[in-house]
Amino acid sequence: MNTVEQLTTVEMMEAETAKLKQIACDACAETWEDRVKTQTPHCKFGEEGICCKNCSMGPCRITSKAPRGICGADAHAIAARNYLRTIAAGTSAHSDHAREILHVLLSTSRDGNYQVRDEVKLVRLATEWGIATEGRDIYDIAHEVAETGLEEFGKSHGTLRFLKRAIPERQKVWADLGIEPRAIDREIATSLHMTHMGNTADADALIIQGLRTALSNGWGGSMLGTEITDILFGTPQVWTTEGNLGVLEADMVNVVVHGHDPAFSEMVVTATEIKELVDYAKSKGAKGINVVGLCCTANEVAMRHGVRMAGNFLQQENVILTGAVEMMCVDVQCIFPALAQLSECFHTKFVTSSPIARIPGSIYVEFKPETAFDQAKDLVKMAVENYDKRDRVKMYIPPTKQTATVGYPCEQIVKHLDGVTNSHVEELGSYRPAVDAIKSGVLRGAVGIVGCNNPRVRPDYSHFEILKELLANDILVVATGCAAQLATKAGLLSMEAKWQCGAGLRRVCDLVGIPPILHMGACVDISRILLLVNGIARDWGVDTTALPIVGCAPEWMSEKAVSIANYVVSSGIDVYLGIEPQIKGSSQMMELVTDGTRKLTGAGYIINTDPHMLVKSILDGIETKRAALGI
Amino acid sequence: MNTVEQLTTVEMMEAETAKLKQIACDACAETWEDRVKTQTPHCKFGEEGICCKNCSMGPCRITSKAPRGICGADAHAIAARNYLRTIAAGTSAHSDHAREILHVLLSTSRDGNYQVRDEVKLVRLATEWGIATEGRDIYDIAHEVAETGLEEFGKSHGTLRFLKRAIPERQKVWADLGIEPRAIDREIATSLHMTHMGNTADADALIIQGLRTALSNGWGGSMLGTEITDILFGTPQVWTTEGNLGVLEADMVNVVVHGHDPAFSEMVVTATEIKELVDYAKSKGAKGINVVGLCCTANEVAMRHGVRMAGNFLQQENVILTGAVEMMCVDVQCIFPALAQLSECFHTKFVTSSPIARIPGSIYVEFKPETAFDQAKDLVKMAVENYDKRDRVKMYIPPTKQTATVGYPCEQIVKHLDGVTNSHVEELGSYRPAVDAIKSGVLRGAVGIVGCNNPRVRPDYSHFEILKELLANDILVVATGCAAQLATKAGLLSMEAKWQCGAGLRRVCDLVGIPPILHMGACVDISRILLLVNGIARDWGVDTTALPIVGCAPEWMSEKAVSIANYVVSSGIDVYLGIEPQIKGSSQMMELVTDGTRKLTGAGYIINTDPHMLVKSILDGIETKRAALGI
Repeated sequence: MNTVEQLTTVEMMEAETAKLKQIACDACAETWEDRVKTQTPHCKFGEEGICCKNCSMGPCRITSKAPRGICGADAHAIAARNYLRTIAAGTSAHSDHAREILHVLLSTSRDGNYQVRDEVKLVRLATEWGIATEGRDIYDIAHEVAETGLEEFGKSHGTLRFLKRAIPERQKVWADLGIEPRAIDREIATSLHMTHMGNTADADALIIQGLRTALSNGWGGSMLGTEITDILFGTPQVWTTEGNLGVLEADMVNVVVHGHDPAFSEMVVTATEIKELVDYAKSKGAKGINVVGLCCTANEVAMRHGVRMAGNFLQQENVILTGAVEMMCVDVQCIFPALAQLSECFHTKFVTSSPIARIPGSIYVEFKPETAFDQAKDLVKMAVENYDKRDRVKMYIPPTKQTATVGYPCEQIVKHLDGVTNSHVEELGSYRPAVDAIKSGVLRGAVGIVGCNNPRVRPDYSHFEILKELLANDILVVATGCAAQLATKAGLLSMEAKWQCGAGLRRVCDLVGIPPILHMGACVDISRILLLVNGIARDWGVDTTALPIVGCAPEWMSEKAVSIANYVVSSGIDVYLGIEPQIKGSSQMMELVTDGTRKLTGAGYIINTDPHMLVKSILDGIETKRAALGI
Repeated sequence: MNTVEQLTTVEMMEAETAKLKQIACDACAETWEDRVKTQTPHCKFGEEGICCKNCSMGPCRITSKAPRGICGADAHAIAARNYLRTIAAGTSAHSDHAREILHVLLSTSRDGNYQVRDEVKLVRLATEWGIATEGRDIYDIAHEVAETGLEEFGKSHGTLRFLKRAIPERQKVWADLGIEPRAIDREIATSLHMTHMGNTADADALIIQGLRTALSNGWGGSMLGTEITDILFGTPQVWTTEGNLGVLEADMVNVVVHGHDPAFSEMVVTATEIKELVDYAKSKGAKGINVVGLCCTANEVAMRHGVRMAGNFLQQENVILTGAVEMMCVDVQCIFPALAQLSECFHTKFVTSSPIARIPGSIYVEFKPETAFDQAKDLVKMAVENYDKRDRVKMYIPPTKQTATVGYPCEQIVKHLDGVTNSHVEELGSYRPAVDAIKSGVLRGAVGIVGCNNPRVRPDYSHFEILKELLANDILVVATGCAAQLATKAGLLSMEAKWQCGAGLRRVCDLVGIPPILHMGACVDISRILLLVNGIARDWGVDTTALPIVGCAPEWMSEKAVSIANYVVSSGIDVYLGIEPQIKGSSQMMELVTDGTRKLTGAGYIINTDPHMLVKSILDGIETKRAALGI
């Protein structure tokens, strides 16, 4: 088993994509591959960040002959303004998502559509926030926690509550730099104001506001999103499930949930399990209802229900192209508007559910907490009724799928580490076994692999190559988002993936009973990685910057990713990027995001679009950190 | 006097600019005219709004051969997303400005740097908001009002308080459309989220969120900014002052205040009046200290102190080029970063004061309420000490200036109307005399002329031509911002400008004792125009859409202007634009901002880049409204 043969390679995935692409051609349907062709080459000014559209005197573009925009802004000011706006937009996405989840928590009741599933976590959070819990009804506590959480978006004074979760060294760095975020939405609004025509033209100041705004995501919106989602739907547990297009079933009603906010998908998953609807599906000739996830929603429902995963960002059109999907239900973020048109070429019903993500040509059902379950049932019923519209001649479900063990939030990691702790000698509930494994060199370090797909590089190839190389070099990996989805598809989340590892990491996997890549959730859950790294730093007794632990986004694409990269860097963790940030037109900005940020926060970007060079620099970076620690 | 000769024409202004441009050439200094040359032609994709930079798969640009971006977003989605982001940025600017002002109000004390100057207005606002006033210390009330105001940015529930100031018909329109804004910053964050990759691609939904976000500016941030500024620094009164570059003095220390947020400029103005500093200036051979305003800060300090005004947006470099400015003190918005480099060619000290507007090459003094007055004194002292560095050989102060009567907030307009009300028959304190004048046809209607300068059209020419034509046709004008500054420079804010008017308007000017163009303040004060129009509608007994009253932005440039245009349209008032919004690449968006919005709110855009055609359409529009009213 210790060969590459157990894996699904990128070449194998591409072969299946090619077959589906042929179906698209036959249906005269367009896919992202076609649009990439018509959209390349991209505008160089945009790619390099030196096009300014922030007032109607312009657009202005910087060249050697036009070194300043009409107002006098130079390449550095323009690139930095665009970059800060990108961070603000990315922050808004995770934060607005968290706000919705908090409103769902506010809607909970014992007999309502939504309940509290993790009371322990709720009480822990209430206690952390100084909210009385003794003798109170759990729903009273839930509502007060929700109200307190909502205040984080708009409070007039003070800084974010979760900053206190960081190690003291980090809190001091933030205080010294003056980048402790105030209310989340305020940082977003202030970022837009700073970048408005006639305001800040100083790249240094814009980068610093970027760090602050990003922190309001990582230690604000994202962390709220994750915590409250756990309280509502349960803190994830370990599940063995499957991933890739082969999870679609030829003889079942296939319902795909896609997006990010689990409030909708949780209800759809629950509805597909209702006997009445399963029977209804059987009455229509199907063997049952098969719900699968896509993109980060896949991560959410896999971690909480073991729901199988159909794929990641650039696979979303492939899912429709199988011709086997009765309904695709989406919530927010990373949804191709192209899905509407594509669905029309098949029988697939494309359902949007959020006022945040309205897409022309979709069936729009505005999802509301008070009617959520009935709405979900109606949708699943509609999917069942669509089953006999499927054109079985057109249908092609690639047979490929892999086993994946998923669901490792911090709580699960600690629990597994407790299993190898001698409770007579050591305290339980710590990361000390992991620290010891890294100190001893059994593990060389750890890497968080996160982020999207991006056609700028060969999709999934960078993820695949980097993951393989890290495992072979005894680097434990934690993964979220579309990176985790690639690991799923490839078979790298399987327990058997230990055979891809060096001897040290394999031994750890065997001892602890984990796969070498720990699936930590959706992109919003990178907040879990922040807590993990801070926990390790605390148990080690060093700042996060000293640890041989880094982040890597080999194929990032979205504005969220830029916000994430900045909160990770602000948290003292180096970030290795496989896609260039769009600031290359400013030498100052390139310096600022690498060495400049490192001077401020102790961490920065390392950028390389060649995955083999990138992983080499990660390994070098980790060894350098080890050497500095004298290990 | 009833000829054009009393006016300073655009040609005369241009002749002075040409002389100053020669000084720039001699000093090898660059100005906006040079940069316009190197920046044109502009990128067509950007101008038409069909370039998307919202993820790093792109930028994507729409052409007939590439009708969709990589994600599938079409021209309509892309243009609408860009447009909503523009509105969000413009909203952030006014709103963040208001937040700063509220923090200043929170800092007030009887013996502090800032006091409450308009206690009556404070108590009125407190009463409106249900805050107890009876027997309380005015500063306790002030602080509670400030805290309540700050909550408008981030409250977790409810809609904005000031919406209730609108006539019931408007409130119903907003409620029916579901566009009553929630917390101001929330609308901004939600707008960024909606336009994030993979979210809304539906232009209709994006436009509707644009209206809501804009309302959170007009009836939120801007109105808060205006109200609180009046409370802090006094509700404006009528002043006769002067405007244009001739207000700079050859034998005085010239200090220019530029920007938007008056918290800084108020202190600078106060500092220039201190005997000790005036004496110090005299000891340096100057006759005294001459403080003048630029851009919207000019409007703020002219309305409250009669401070003279040096000019508008595209005049900011001219002011430096006179070689007569010892110091330019700026706060936020519309400040050319180019001023730093330009100041270095002269002796001018260029001082930035806000963390929101950091400009490389400036002297940065972070202005804080607790040390404000001392900081202002230090700066004025620095300016005085710079006086003998002035190079009198290079110096050229154009002699041109005009008399202007400024300072007509709603309170002043009502007061003037009271003067022509027979208090035995009619109630005082209403707009009824204005309503009657419009009904009778003595006035045909009223127009709010607002907005910036923009080199896309001949600067100030559109303002000038449109103003002249409106006055000649018996249209009363209210003006703010850079439009009001052109009126000042031209002589159109003078009482003598009545000779430019038709017989009806001239009679009104004589009877009421006003100039034909009422100066209502800075761009943030367009909220005053909202209240004025709603007051007139209330006294008339019709919806705002029925009134022969419209808005016009002939030379708008900034994102703020797009936000303003949208809250004006949402408030039922047609907006005539002399610069095209950057959405032309989407036929759907062009339809939406004109007829589409009109179907929703009763008002929309009318766009024409030819000022003579634009003013003709305004006159036609007003006559159409009159006909519909049967007057």
